[in-house]
Amino acid sequence: MYIVILAGGSGTRFWPLSRVARPKQLISITGDSSMLQRTVERILPLNPKRILVITNHLQADETKRQLLSYDSVPIDVIAEPVGRNTAAAIGLAAALVTTYDPSGIMVVLPADHFIKNEKVLRDTITFAGESARRGFLITLGIMPSRPETGYGYIEAEINLHVSDNLQGPFPVRRFVEKPPLVEAVRYLNEGNFFWNSGMFVWRADTILEEMAAYMPAFHEKLLQSGVAIGTILLKEQIASLYQDIESLSIDYAIMEKSSRVLMVPVEMGWSDVGSWSALPEVIEPDNNGTVCVNAAGHIAVDSSNCLIYSDQKMVATVGVNNIVIVSTPDAILICDKERCQDVKKVVEQLGTAGLTEYL
Amino acid sequence: MYIVILAGGSGTRFWPLSRVARPKQLISITGDSSMLQRTVERILPLNPKRILVITNHLQADETKRQLLSYDSVPIDVIAEPVGRNTAAAIGLAAALVTTYDPSGIMVVLPADHFIKNEKVLRDTITFAGESARRGFLITLGIMPSRPETGYGYIEAEINLHVSDNLQGPFPVRRFVEKPPLVEAVRYLNEGNFFWNSGMFVWRADTILEEMAAYMPAFHEKLLQSGVAIGTILLKEQIASLYQDIESLSIDYAIMEKSSRVLMVPVEMGWSDVGSWSALPEVIEPDNNGTVCVNAAGHIAVDSSNCLIYSDQKMVATVGVNNIVIVSTPDAILICDKERCQDVKKVVEQLGTAGLTEYL
Repeated sequence: MYIVILAGGSGTRFWPLSRVARPKQLISITGDSSMLQRTVERILPLNPKRILVITNHLQADETKRQLLSYDSVPIDVIAEPVGRNTAAAIGLAAALVTTYDPSGIMVVLPADHFIKNEKVLRDTITFAGESARRGFLITLGIMPSRPETGYGYIEAEINLHVSDNLQGPFPVRRFVEKPPLVEAVRYLNEGNFFWNSGMFVWRADTILEEMAAYMPAFHEKLLQSGVAIGTILLKEQIASLYQDIESLSIDYAIMEKSSRVLMVPVEMGWSDVGSWSALPEVIEPDNNGTVCVNAAGHIAVDSSNCLIYSDQKMVATVGVNNIVIVSTPDAILICDKERCQDVKKVVEQLGTAGLTEYL
Repeated sequence: MYIVILAGGSGTRFWPLSRVARPKQLISITGDSSMLQRTVERILPLNPKRILVITNHLQADETKRQLLSYDSVPIDVIAEPVGRNTAAAIGLAAALVTTYDPSGIMVVLPADHFIKNEKVLRDTITFAGESARRGFLITLGIMPSRPETGYGYIEAEINLHVSDNLQGPFPVRRFVEKPPLVEAVRYLNEGNFFWNSGMFVWRADTILEEMAAYMPAFHEKLLQSGVAIGTILLKEQIASLYQDIESLSIDYAIMEKSSRVLMVPVEMGWSDVGSWSALPEVIEPDNNGTVCVNAAGHIAVDSSNCLIYSDQKMVATVGVNNIVIVSTPDAILICDKERCQDVKKVVEQLGTAGLTEYL
């Protein structure tokens, strides 16, 4: 089993904690290991043959540094010269896995997700691996816990009267973009809609066959580039591959088209931790609904439902509710909890003002 | 002319910038000189004979340190062993001024007020000095600019038809405690009510005579203690004086009783800077109504009317209004602008929790 971790994200929504060279997966929202490190740690009990981490050249050094201490399994850190979405990264990873074992099982995991019940993830991967071995493309569908409008959904072909324990794998009826609230409520009620997690299990040769069918130009370039682990030419091969390729998501390029797709549902306390407002999904709030991470302490006077991340400072709140407070050694963010998506506007304004030291 | 600066306050309402050993008068709300230093600087052009700074033993060292650079005038820093309100501090100061000149003019100024038009203050002191020289107790009354309910008022005996330019000095009809809003509005309309500033001008022997009349026990102790500048026994004399004396304000003990009181009105852009919410009285807000002091910068996304004091950090606000944000090297305060009076509750809670390092 080969674990492919997609770690090339460059999110700006966790500013000021996340920065250009220290994006979400390389920081710790929860105050301990980074999200990348936790992603590695939670799959180590599966005893994978190798871990391939796909990142970009800006973050490669910090990525390698963070992975130095995991010596029970070989880890390859592969740097993309430029981000070209998930289809390209997965194609590259599949070609590299083929170097070791053409029919090797590939588990694709984003580096920046939170998972509460990690054993459930491991058991689900093992279970999904059985279908993957038989040539299916398995996508993990997260059991929804609320009518979330910020995620894409997968509608599965399930006869709910027959399979109430929902083990699967199930055929996929369709992939759905982020829905309006009224639709999301309906999905939650119907019971056969699942959050699209971006986690996959398949054989390297299966996904490459489907790329040959649905991304023939890219697949051809992949073959011509000759990318292979262990060659000193890998960096040049990748640079050559990434010239003039399309930026496509694996869902759009393959999953929505292939007839070999199946979905395995999973309920494991999952969050993609999309912004500061997701902190309560990751850390239990106190009695006042406040989450406080990394502060020396929190004194609350008539305050509730705040999200606090501090660089070991004493934080006091007086008469404020639903406010996000983030403090780092050089910057402070104060944000309405409902406006966390707009933190990226701060980063844009910093860029426009040429304040690159804060980016 | 002798300047007496009352600098013994121990306010907690500017936490986390103000601390026990660094109260409001020893810090800079505006990012430059401390309030004590500005109090000294603004009266230096009057060429006073001496400046006496009355502080307490906890703050004496920092007070002396901040005054080292003013060498054009002799400055005595007198430490009270314990705070006993303004009557005791003023009595002690009067006794010390008597050491130099029994009929010397004493100007009493709080160390923690903001004054925009400092020349007006100096001219008013000079003007008030004329009546003081003739044996009156002059209190400065601030021309009110709003129906403030947080200040005490002085009702003056003024025939507004006769003296529209309000030069004074005027007899005082009564001193009024902090009024309810409806009363404060009436005061503003009537035109003969002034904010009680706690600034006084009188001869040292005049105030001591009135103390003999209205605080005979204290006056007796003052005589017996033999306090005098230039003796090595001063510290012991003061310690002896402060044993078992009442804690009374000069207004309550003398000004409300003496028949020698006159008021001189003054309009000079005054603020007692009572809490963080007073920042816009001291520093002009930007177009969004926000005041930002000492920050590396401020990025505002849909934010307005905030008050920001930062230790040279970049501060970003997203979707927040009427919020006070204060950052120091070890603590952060986020406070509703209407709740600034409750910052002292934070200090109380820190004390209760034994977190003395933050006090």
